Amino acid sequence: MLNGGVPSGGPVRWEKGEERVLAKTRVFEAWARHYRHPVRGTEREFVLVKAPDWVNVVAVTAEGLVVLVRQFRHGIDDFSLEIPGGVIERGEDPVAAGVRELREETGYSGTSARLLASVHPNPAIQDNHTHVVLVEGAAKNAATEWDADEEIEVLTMPFDKVLAEARAGRITHSLTLAGLFHFEPLAGC
Amino acid sequence: MLNGGVPSGGPVRWEKGEERVLAKTRVFEAWARHYRHPVRGTEREFVLVKAPDWVNVVAVTAEGLVVLVRQFRHGIDDFSLEIPGGVIERGEDPVAAGVRELREETGYSGTSARLLASVHPNPAIQDNHTHVVLVEGAAKNAATEWDADEEIEVLTMPFDKVLAEARAGRITHSLTLAGLFHFEPLAGC
Repeated sequence: MLNGGVPSGGPVRWEKGEERVLAKTRVFEAWARHYRHPVRGTEREFVLVKAPDWVNVVAVTAEGLVVLVRQFRHGIDDFSLEIPGGVIERGEDPVAAGVRELREETGYSGTSARLLASVHPNPAIQDNHTHVVLVEGAAKNAATEWDADEEIEVLTMPFDKVLAEARAGRITHSLTLAGLFHFEPLAGC
Repeated sequence: MLNGGVPSGGPVRWEKGEERVLAKTRVFEAWARHYRHPVRGTEREFVLVKAPDWVNVVAVTAEGLVVLVRQFRHGIDDFSLEIPGGVIERGEDPVAAGVRELREETGYSGTSARLLASVHPNPAIQDNHTHVVLVEGAAKNAATEWDADEEIEVLTMPFDKVLAEARAGRITHSLTLAGLFHFEPLAGC
């Protein structure tokens, strides 16, 4: 049955048990979840970060420029160049959330918006998704509406320049990189 | 001085203050960190997830096949197809950590290894890096050495097939996608 430790059918699905909260914050929660391995019989608690789903937006203008935001990020205690995005509100459609975050952060809106991809920030320890929304025909049509602590520089850049910045290590947010990865085939890599 | 809320020099660096731990786990810690905005004068506590740096490995065989791992991931409570990787030990070199994780998880080692890129899992709420290591000339030279709870299916696949799997939504780990993004130019996209 076991083949080098992996059952012949491949890795086994652990059985999920009870879970308990370790810490709640405004942005995420830390939880511990009990699991049992159905073949080995081992029982263990695994920890995870729970958060709402997030959305990232690849917004492209009629001229083919991509909208980027530069802001101070408290996680890394430094500035970060990223595609716009944020937290999806409870019950909110991911595409609607992307359109809203794009407008609030940058003042841009587009002529069309659609879901490009959905990724996991970190399957090992996070339960949420980041949805990647593509907005085309983007233009600055409104004033920004920042949250109290936001302060955002808005830039536009041709996609090949965005790729070059990312590959040179000047765009480091893995969720932005995942968005660029999914947009790349549409841009004609 | 303020231009649409952004100081003329761009977004301002917040001043970091004291921090306090909210929860400690085996894998990550939740912290709150005090910040002051030097222009607005606002003071706020921001929360973050602290973790050691992580490493991901793009391992390519002499035949151009990429080494992938498939395992059950407790964060998403489901299986995930990824490039190999793990936690960098305290004081360990990222490339050495990548070589070690590749060997332990898959039994593969290569003829050369180098740092391809360093990304941030999430600059907004995480302080750590994921380093992407490229291992070339990879071959299965040893037995796997799994941690007690690991159970890993090892696969190899041509890079264009890996890209197709990722773009079809069957590889969803953003840190794996960031690794593929950085390897893509070397593979001749």
